[in-house]
Amino acid sequence: MRRIFILGAGLSASTLIKYLLDNSDKYDWEIVVGDLSLETAQNKVKNHPNGKAIEFDIKNEQQLIDTITKSDVVISMLPAFMHPVVARECVKQGKHMLTASYVSNEMKTLDIEAKAKGIALMNELGVDPGIDHMSAMKVINEIKAKGGILTRFMSNTGGLVAPEYDNNPWNYKFTWNPRNVILAGQGIAQYKEEGKYKYVPYHQLFNRIIKVNVLEYGEFEVYPNRDSLQYREIYDIKEIPTILRGTMRRPGYAKAWQTFVLLGATDDTYTMVSSENMTYREFINSFLPYDKKLSVEEKVAQMAGIEMDSETMNKLRWLGIFENRKVELKNATPAQILQKITMDKWKLGPEDKDMIAMQHQFEYELNGQKKRITSSLVVEGEDTTHTAMSITVGTPLAIATKMLLNAEIKVTGVHTPTIPEIYEPILLELEDYKVKFIEEEETI
Amino acid sequence: MRRIFILGAGLSASTLIKYLLDNSDKYDWEIVVGDLSLETAQNKVKNHPNGKAIEFDIKNEQQLIDTITKSDVVISMLPAFMHPVVARECVKQGKHMLTASYVSNEMKTLDIEAKAKGIALMNELGVDPGIDHMSAMKVINEIKAKGGILTRFMSNTGGLVAPEYDNNPWNYKFTWNPRNVILAGQGIAQYKEEGKYKYVPYHQLFNRIIKVNVLEYGEFEVYPNRDSLQYREIYDIKEIPTILRGTMRRPGYAKAWQTFVLLGATDDTYTMVSSENMTYREFINSFLPYDKKLSVEEKVAQMAGIEMDSETMNKLRWLGIFENRKVELKNATPAQILQKITMDKWKLGPEDKDMIAMQHQFEYELNGQKKRITSSLVVEGEDTTHTAMSITVGTPLAIATKMLLNAEIKVTGVHTPTIPEIYEPILLELEDYKVKFIEEEETI
Repeated sequence: MRRIFILGAGLSASTLIKYLLDNSDKYDWEIVVGDLSLETAQNKVKNHPNGKAIEFDIKNEQQLIDTITKSDVVISMLPAFMHPVVARECVKQGKHMLTASYVSNEMKTLDIEAKAKGIALMNELGVDPGIDHMSAMKVINEIKAKGGILTRFMSNTGGLVAPEYDNNPWNYKFTWNPRNVILAGQGIAQYKEEGKYKYVPYHQLFNRIIKVNVLEYGEFEVYPNRDSLQYREIYDIKEIPTILRGTMRRPGYAKAWQTFVLLGATDDTYTMVSSENMTYREFINSFLPYDKKLSVEEKVAQMAGIEMDSETMNKLRWLGIFENRKVELKNATPAQILQKITMDKWKLGPEDKDMIAMQHQFEYELNGQKKRITSSLVVEGEDTTHTAMSITVGTPLAIATKMLLNAEIKVTGVHTPTIPEIYEPILLELEDYKVKFIEEEETI
Repeated sequence: MRRIFILGAGLSASTLIKYLLDNSDKYDWEIVVGDLSLETAQNKVKNHPNGKAIEFDIKNEQQLIDTITKSDVVISMLPAFMHPVVARECVKQGKHMLTASYVSNEMKTLDIEAKAKGIALMNELGVDPGIDHMSAMKVINEIKAKGGILTRFMSNTGGLVAPEYDNNPWNYKFTWNPRNVILAGQGIAQYKEEGKYKYVPYHQLFNRIIKVNVLEYGEFEVYPNRDSLQYREIYDIKEIPTILRGTMRRPGYAKAWQTFVLLGATDDTYTMVSSENMTYREFINSFLPYDKKLSVEEKVAQMAGIEMDSETMNKLRWLGIFENRKVELKNATPAQILQKITMDKWKLGPEDKDMIAMQHQFEYELNGQKKRITSSLVVEGEDTTHTAMSITVGTPLAIATKMLLNAEIKVTGVHTPTIPEIYEPILLELEDYKVKFIEEEETI
């Protein structure tokens, strides 16, 4: 019997744990699930005969050492900054480890030692990063194999609410960490278009919108992610003239969100005086010039250059930002207050289902012809446990774990799923779980 | 004979050194001027019989100790972060010290020890901070003394080119550290208006303009400085409903500068790819969306919402930002590139004179009447050595030094010039050097 040790049993681990338990008889696995909260771990294991829930604290070094000693492979679902602690112990003891997080510089330094021990440290095995790499690399390598020259690569992902439950003016609900949504895009976005480097400051980001259509799901808008340029190296497409990665929202979201950016209401760098006694309306007014005659609504409309009866103003009114409700948060930053306001309205209801949408566009030249491949994926959540996020993060991670234990993946050292040996079998099996890309090709 | 030791002999020390040398016979002083460059120190001392130029390196600890030992008072004109090293040694040896810089937290911690030694560590004795404090506190204390209730305080300062030499479309030239001008306003600006706290994000700062008139010098525009709120404590006007400190420019500057802010061209947080090979035009274009049909000029006009033949576009064209000149700076940030471009055009010529403008507006209620006092100062430079900046920074510092040596100021510990004992005699003597505020009062 082989033992799989999962650290962290939060929402995004649900489908991962279910897959491994479902396959545990077939492959003779024991699944040990550790979480700070024993109850959380128990809720995921559900008394499965091959499962074991334990209370686990990453700060307990001896427990970490002992649990890894008894395991054959370790999956860390902890916050990304905690991975290196786990990774160092895994390397020491010669145990495989997997994560769904970006490879950190600290992780990279373990490569040589991991190779020497003959074990794999596999990262970026979730959805984004994860499925995005796998599905993009598959098409890129196919185009290269037939002699095509890539001229444009655009890759977009969005975590949204499923269409049936999409019933508010923003066409958006929080399906993931709300704080990340409030702070999304801060810093500088970099991409390349037609051979020219482009830099977008945060206060222009939600104006720099591209429209895309995804299968029968209709229109989405895309704003650029922080650093698209690094993917030229990661995907080995260094000479590509156009490369852009972006985040998808439903049309109209970006223009309305831009109002908050313009106001400065997403700032997380300072706390506001007497924030707890401020009303939502006063919060918004604090970013606007003093004016004896104009209402807060009129000042917002003027600043954003929009009409009082516009769709954007309707979205803002619906969120309740002009109401005289108290903020009731002490020493809060603007971003923390905006998070509170939006959480009132954008909360995913108990019956709601989420959705992950992903689409790559590849343009290439072959034999004097210009072609475009569009590769699209939409996954809807099954319920509030097996959300689209949990399915798309957990399933590739689970498949990779199985393949490592069955020696179907034989890599050693630090890896991401950008090589065919890893991504081909994972993408194939993902189709059994309704995670299937639809590829369309056209001559342009 | 008493010895005054001046550390740093840069441009802003010229008038300070001249004042002290001019008064050295009368008061029996020796003036020792130390600078990293002996030549720079010599150029300021000019073989004056009571002056001595030395090569001085703050990193040479023994030299610092020895020179302070031989001195009665020390003036640090070094960059502000170096003051604490000097201050600690002055406290140790029981010598007075003066600076024109903001009191740092490190400086504050020396207060008790300085008091125990009976010496003064006097700071913020230049123009801003310095003359601004003195002239504001004078009027505030006068209003309080007659029982007036302050309702509004606005205080603005600008370093500009003198009207006779003001001959470019921006009505601006660099009279001070260019880098500070490029980065001016980054972060959040906070002020209070009619009892309401106001927060202005950087990308809105140059839109939040107030117009003022100064004496016969005509109209200026003002954008808010970073933290006006802290002056409620410093000036002991905690309950004031309106307080705003700002920076003055000539009308039209802010709107044109806002274009650079909108573009993201003042960003100093990242370096641009192949910056050395970029042209000025490509630099500007890298912040704008790709467009097959529109020129860079048209895209800028569109983004800023201005006409192609507008005054703002004329200002931008005049700066040369659309030219095909190479940037020629490696690994440069946008802010560094913008500094290079503007330095080509905004350089103060050898015949040019600068100007410091400062204006306070005080509104108060007394016996049921509302009144306004406007206190204005304009100082023009004499030449390229005794600039307005050098005169207004150096003269109050020199006067304070004289008063300390003559025991006309008897304070000990860490101080700024906000108490009458310090600001009254300094303001009085400053009038002999054409640094004289014009006060106008009106009923409103």
